[in-house]
Amino acid sequence: MTGAFMSQLLPLAPPAASPPSFAGAFQADLDTLLTWRRDVRRFRTDPVPEPLVEALLARAHLAPSVGNSQPWRFVRVRSPERIEAVAADFAACNARAQNAQPPERQAAYAALKVEGLREAPVQMAVFCDDTTAQGHGLGQATMPETRAYSVVLAIHTLWLAARAQGLGVGWVSILSPEVVTRSLEVPAGWRFIAWLCIGWPEQALGIPELETAGWQDRAERPVVVER
Amino acid sequence: MTGAFMSQLLPLAPPAASPPSFAGAFQADLDTLLTWRRDVRRFRTDPVPEPLVEALLARAHLAPSVGNSQPWRFVRVRSPERIEAVAADFAACNARAQNAQPPERQAAYAALKVEGLREAPVQMAVFCDDTTAQGHGLGQATMPETRAYSVVLAIHTLWLAARAQGLGVGWVSILSPEVVTRSLEVPAGWRFIAWLCIGWPEQALGIPELETAGWQDRAERPVVVER
Repeated sequence: MTGAFMSQLLPLAPPAASPPSFAGAFQADLDTLLTWRRDVRRFRTDPVPEPLVEALLARAHLAPSVGNSQPWRFVRVRSPERIEAVAADFAACNARAQNAQPPERQAAYAALKVEGLREAPVQMAVFCDDTTAQGHGLGQATMPETRAYSVVLAIHTLWLAARAQGLGVGWVSILSPEVVTRSLEVPAGWRFIAWLCIGWPEQALGIPELETAGWQDRAERPVVVER
Repeated sequence: MTGAFMSQLLPLAPPAASPPSFAGAFQADLDTLLTWRRDVRRFRTDPVPEPLVEALLARAHLAPSVGNSQPWRFVRVRSPERIEAVAADFAACNARAQNAQPPERQAAYAALKVEGLREAPVQMAVFCDDTTAQGHGLGQATMPETRAYSVVLAIHTLWLAARAQGLGVGWVSILSPEVVTRSLEVPAGWRFIAWLCIGWPEQALGIPELETAGWQDRAERPVVVER
């Protein structure tokens, strides 16, 4: 395994000695961040500085994880051949998914742009190491899926940190996990969770593209029931 | 199904007309939030104002979701009988998990406090509606688990919004999904993802309890490989 551990060029500030409290201005800005986050599919092709990528990974590493297991594994995909293999898999999966839509929705499906595999300058696959001993199994006995969920928490942390820096992230899920896993030759026991396209968005959007494209509006409010 | 939709007493501000950019001070505060987030297990028992709970749910609802499907379903558990049933399930699952540890770790396991089921004033179960038509299946054909991952993204959003308000969240996973699902009598097709204990933490902690208790340190850096 060709390991390349991050060099932490942009380290986090050391934790404060006393617990922070957050001002109203921060809470309002956090709302703005959550409101404008977006799944980005249209990227400029100019590069993202490496220290910024490393800074995002350092922040992802702050995510919560079951039993402190930190099972996230990041694969920075630089090989054009590997990216092409994954893009070809996307094309095949997407064609099948389009054909599986009801006839009246197929044209709308075909018009969607749902990935930036060839434009975004940073392509990253994220895996869950189901074999890690870190955490000593705590919290995973009845719900082993919490390992994968921990990886999702790290992805979301990276996503928000990226948006705070003006960077866009797009999560591609129209892929065959076995094809991606094989193409990237990752260690045995690593389970594919997500493919992330990361780069500068062509345009910052306040509304999801799936909504403006007429595919799916958002529900105004979450479903909350009482028991 | 006894539906109780949120009344949005604390609505979000309307989105800004133009894309925001985030100042360095916000980025630094976001780092502080990520650094001090914590999984909380020790709660004060004084109540959380209802508008604050509703505000957290409104923010969770801003999370990304596969195909804009927003499959998160929140169950606010108020019935002491139901909470007791879940706490009993936790006790049984936790005893089994402790027994499954190697002999030399069982005492350390027994000393851990890993939930606030009886102290935290807000108990909330979070489910994934695997039957929702919202999103028209987009993005889920090859990786249906992305529905559950979307729910995890909403949970993390709620978690960060809570910490920004000084509230603690603890995710309990040492539970039998089938027992929780049955105890709460949720609609068919709802899959149990997480149990959240929410309240004011006894103490804000800069370091995970699992680390200070000697159970599991954090790795200094994430594993990043190149391909």
